[in-house]
Amino acid sequence: MAARRLVEVYLDLLSQPCRAVHILLSCTGIPHTVRTVALRKGNENRTPEFTKLNPMQKVPVMVDNGFVLTESDAILKYLVTRYDVPEHWYPRQPERRARVDEYTAWHHSNTRPHAARVFILEVLLPAQSGSPVDEVRLNRALSELDVSLDRLETAFLRRQPFLCGDDITVADLLAVCELMQPLGGGRDVLQRRPELQRWRSRVQTAVGESFDRAHAVLYAVRERRSAKL
Amino acid sequence: MAARRLVEVYLDLLSQPCRAVHILLSCTGIPHTVRTVALRKGNENRTPEFTKLNPMQKVPVMVDNGFVLTESDAILKYLVTRYDVPEHWYPRQPERRARVDEYTAWHHSNTRPHAARVFILEVLLPAQSGSPVDEVRLNRALSELDVSLDRLETAFLRRQPFLCGDDITVADLLAVCELMQPLGGGRDVLQRRPELQRWRSRVQTAVGESFDRAHAVLYAVRERRSAKL
Repeated sequence: MAARRLVEVYLDLLSQPCRAVHILLSCTGIPHTVRTVALRKGNENRTPEFTKLNPMQKVPVMVDNGFVLTESDAILKYLVTRYDVPEHWYPRQPERRARVDEYTAWHHSNTRPHAARVFILEVLLPAQSGSPVDEVRLNRALSELDVSLDRLETAFLRRQPFLCGDDITVADLLAVCELMQPLGGGRDVLQRRPELQRWRSRVQTAVGESFDRAHAVLYAVRERRSAKL
Repeated sequence: MAARRLVEVYLDLLSQPCRAVHILLSCTGIPHTVRTVALRKGNENRTPEFTKLNPMQKVPVMVDNGFVLTESDAILKYLVTRYDVPEHWYPRQPERRARVDEYTAWHHSNTRPHAARVFILEVLLPAQSGSPVDEVRLNRALSELDVSLDRLETAFLRRQPFLCGDDITVADLLAVCELMQPLGGGRDVLQRRPELQRWRSRVQTAVGESFDRAHAVLYAVRERRSAKL
C-alpha cells in the first residue's frame, strides 16, 4: 500500500509566521504532519539534523514530497497553488493576486518587524537578561508600530473587509499572527483600534477553531506572566 | 485611433527597487512610460497629486490601464504575469516559482535593509547632517551585510548560476540593485567576493545595456563624491 502523501512542516507555534502556516493547513484540511522545533528552550533549530534541512536554522520549514521550502510567505503561496484549496486564499486573477503580493512585500518591512519588536522588548529580552523592560526603546517601538497600524487601517482596509479584498487571503494570516504576538506580554496592540479589531474578528470567524489552536502556546505565555505579576 | 496601451511607472532611479523595475521593463521591451519622482531633492513624492496616487508617498508606483500597484516585488511579479515576457523571469511551475517567492521574502529582511543601511550611513546621513560618517554604526552595518552576503553565496547561489536556478528571475534584479547601492559612496561590497562578482556579471550580461542605463544616476553620485575627495 502506498503511503498517503503528507506535507511535513517544522514549526514552533511561538513564532508568528509558523502560526500562519499552521492555520492555513488546519483550516483548509491539507493533509499534514507537524514536527515541533522548540526554538527558545531547546535550541532544536541548531541540531545537525535540522541545520541540514535548513542551513538558516529558522522555522517554518516545509517538506512536500522531498521539496524543501523556507519562508512562511513562500510556503503559504506554494500550498495554495499546489493543493486544492479555495482560490480566494491567493487569487489567480493577476490584479487580485498582485494585491496579495503588494501586502506581503510591505508586511516584511512594516507589520512584521514593528510588532515583533514590541514582543522582543517586553517579553523576550527581559526574560533572557533578567533586567526590567527598557521603556524608552519600548515607547519608540510602539510609535513605529502605530504608524504601521494606521497604514493597515487607512490603506489596506479602506473600504474592504480583508486586507486584500472581499475575502480572506494568506496576507490576513501573516498580519494577524504578527499583531497577536504582543499579547504574550499582556498587550493587545489593537485595543484602541476598533476597525482593526473588527478585521481580526472577521479573520477568526473565517478560520474557525484553527485560530485558537495555533495561538494556544501564546495564550499560555500570557497566562504564566499574568500569574507571576 | 485607439491610444497604444502603455504601463506607466513612477520612479526615482536612485532608489534600488525602482531600478529593478526599470531594468525589467527595458530589457523585456514592455511598452512603458517613466515618470520621474525626485525623492531627495524635490520631495516630489509629497505633492498632493502623487500622494493621491500612493498615500504611502513611496516609489515605485505602477499604473497599468487604471490599476495602481505599489511595492517593487509585487510590480515585478505582476508585469511578468500580465505581459508576454519570457517565463524564466517568474516561472509558472510551482516549485520553481516558490524558489523566487522564498528569495524575495528573505530579501526584505536581509539583503535590502543591510545593503541600504551602508549607503544611508556612508552617503545619505552625512550629506543631510554635514557630520562625518559614524564609523561604529557603519562597521556594525557592514558586519550585518556580511552575514547576508555569506547566505547569498552558501544558500542561494550554491550549485546554481542565479539566485533561484539556472536562469535569471526577478529575484536577481531585486538583489543586484540593492548590492549596487553602496557604490554610490565608492564602496563595492562585493570586492572580496569573487563568487558574487561572477553572479553580478551574469546578471549584467543577461539584461544587457539596461543595467548601466538604470544605474547611470548612481554612477554619477559616485563620481561627484570622488571628485570632491
